[in-house]
Amino acid sequence: MTGLLIRDCRPMGGPAADILVAAGRIAAIGPGLSAPAGTPVEEGRGLLALPAFVEGHTHLDKTLWGTPWWVNEVGPRLIDRIEAERRELARRDHDPAAAAERLARAFLLRGTTRIRSHADVAPEIGTRHADALVALRDALRGTMDIQVVAFPQSGLLVRPGTLDLLDRALRNGADILGGLDPSGIDRDPKGHCDAIFGLAARHGVPLDIHLHEPGELGAFALELIIERTLAQGMQGRVVVSHAFCLGEVARAPALHEALAAAGIALATTAPPSRPVPSVRAARAAGGRIFAGNDGIRDTWNPNNGPDMLQRAWLVALKNDFRRDDEMELAFRMVTDWAAAACGFEACALAEGQRADLVLLEAENPLEAVAVQPPRRLVVSHGRVVARDGAAVP
Amino acid sequence: MTGLLIRDCRPMGGPAADILVAAGRIAAIGPGLSAPAGTPVEEGRGLLALPAFVEGHTHLDKTLWGTPWWVNEVGPRLIDRIEAERRELARRDHDPAAAAERLARAFLLRGTTRIRSHADVAPEIGTRHADALVALRDALRGTMDIQVVAFPQSGLLVRPGTLDLLDRALRNGADILGGLDPSGIDRDPKGHCDAIFGLAARHGVPLDIHLHEPGELGAFALELIIERTLAQGMQGRVVVSHAFCLGEVARAPALHEALAAAGIALATTAPPSRPVPSVRAARAAGGRIFAGNDGIRDTWNPNNGPDMLQRAWLVALKNDFRRDDEMELAFRMVTDWAAAACGFEACALAEGQRADLVLLEAENPLEAVAVQPPRRLVVSHGRVVARDGAAVP
Repeated sequence: MTGLLIRDCRPMGGPAADILVAAGRIAAIGPGLSAPAGTPVEEGRGLLALPAFVEGHTHLDKTLWGTPWWVNEVGPRLIDRIEAERRELARRDHDPAAAAERLARAFLLRGTTRIRSHADVAPEIGTRHADALVALRDALRGTMDIQVVAFPQSGLLVRPGTLDLLDRALRNGADILGGLDPSGIDRDPKGHCDAIFGLAARHGVPLDIHLHEPGELGAFALELIIERTLAQGMQGRVVVSHAFCLGEVARAPALHEALAAAGIALATTAPPSRPVPSVRAARAAGGRIFAGNDGIRDTWNPNNGPDMLQRAWLVALKNDFRRDDEMELAFRMVTDWAAAACGFEACALAEGQRADLVLLEAENPLEAVAVQPPRRLVVSHGRVVARDGAAVP
Repeated sequence: MTGLLIRDCRPMGGPAADILVAAGRIAAIGPGLSAPAGTPVEEGRGLLALPAFVEGHTHLDKTLWGTPWWVNEVGPRLIDRIEAERRELARRDHDPAAAAERLARAFLLRGTTRIRSHADVAPEIGTRHADALVALRDALRGTMDIQVVAFPQSGLLVRPGTLDLLDRALRNGADILGGLDPSGIDRDPKGHCDAIFGLAARHGVPLDIHLHEPGELGAFALELIIERTLAQGMQGRVVVSHAFCLGEVARAPALHEALAAAGIALATTAPPSRPVPSVRAARAAGGRIFAGNDGIRDTWNPNNGPDMLQRAWLVALKNDFRRDDEMELAFRMVTDWAAAACGFEACALAEGQRADLVLLEAENPLEAVAVQPPRRLVVSHGRVVARDGAAVP
């Protein structure tokens, strides 16, 4: 049963209304709705109703969420972090399936129903992480939508055997192929791009490429990615994650134009500590951009959490959003823009849309971003899945 | 009565212990303590106990906290923001006393017991804001410690009459004299510094100077402030707030050394959108630095909140703190470092210290910064003042 009547909430901060759900979708929104006998009723008590959120970039497989605090004594270099992770996950016999499910359910409690997660693929672990996320995706179908990116975290060409493993992960059901720093890590930008675009074409899957490379090196990688996206007709099916270089090079506006023309979307975590693509600049060029948390409570970083309102708030702070029309951009970074760029169902609060929604104490979506209040009720596919931060079985 | 026994909490994340409070101060910390008959008892249920927090830089007088969402359509220039504020506060007949008390009490609910607040002083409003904060400070004595900075938000020399008003605000009880962008706003760096250092000397009060000036212009202002601090023997009694220039100029390390030698502390809000002083750099030079939220839910910005753990988290993100020893720095930015630099009582969890403390669900102070959990219990001056986010009368 996925029928539900939510009484007296304020969709998107508008006037009080009821929301009637049937078969997991919104059947009607308006005042004084009635429901078929036996339909469960939730009292909205004037709470704000928002569409559920989308996590556009995380790493479910590697989280330590839900386990005791991990004392981080890792050195500052990238290689220190990669090695610390490999060592620690092996030492604790890390179970990516259990870890990913804990974190996915933590997201759900906070109103996120759709997640794009990268999953490490590497010779040491084979396709174990990606396979675990594929199984989780299938197990949670109907409650959460999860996309699995088979991701060569430790490098692709520099780690022989990884390309075959990515191929196997895709055959095993991963949805998307990942790439990583063609020059900075793989030392062969042409070779890296040829490899991932070639494998994506063979499997007919989209691409999501981590690009940490700074300045003009990163801009060069963007050019290679744009050229191949156009040549291969992959417009609308390529995401570049991070793209810090767009916060650094003077020619960022032209690159944003070229990315928009190639239908390439940007995923940003809006980290306070370094330059990032400007949301305004991306949108001004007609481009697409959305938000993600990146790794959450892992050996890389203790600081991120499974709350997309918190990430939207960081997007607002990072972009110095203050006006209402700017705060709205931050909200869209974790809702419809993220859904559209990732290819998730959009779940707007409108008739016919899937009933994924959140009730909380705020006046409007902008205040929800500014304050990130506790989630009073979370509905996924028309079913109440969480109440006051606790799962509803 | 300020006696209290808190059973079974974990001070600073250490082993389970009781905390016995007598006459508003911590009388003992240890297992199995007993209290005089009639002493109120709180069950800590294994919660983490932390010292209460310090807000080192905010503007209580101008907040819209607790009022309906204000639609922000303000232009992007500094002058747009100053004029929008003047217009809106006049239009709504803004009551700085009521506004400040609402926000101060919101801070208290979230575990902050000491606040340094700037209060606008300007010809249009006279000393009304500063006087209101002085009255609030006196009214809340014994529950919260508030410091009032008489602050020329609209300029000093460029707004004739303001210097006299600052003088009056100090005579009326303001604790600290503020300054503001000697070149960028006041157009006369020597004149501005002469004026504020002169007035501070006449009143024997400390200084807290807003410095937004970028790059070398800001560095020049720092030099002027350092020179006068040394000449006037005001070491330990001058704070520079923001000092964005220290995130920009290559000679920041030398400036940090000079600031440390002059006993000048830095207040930072660690805004994600612009360069800021590095916490590591300030401390490496032997300097003092602490955190504040700046304006909260006002006409300038909807995004800040009255939660010092949230601000510590932003400090961590801004400074790319990941290791435990780094996360600890973020915690100290809103506790003992802030107290020492502002001249508040320190309130550490130790015998003899004032019993200002917070209980919450976290494993240790670092997780408290990373997750910012709800405050289960807030104790100020040995008295329970808030429970589960609600005030205890």
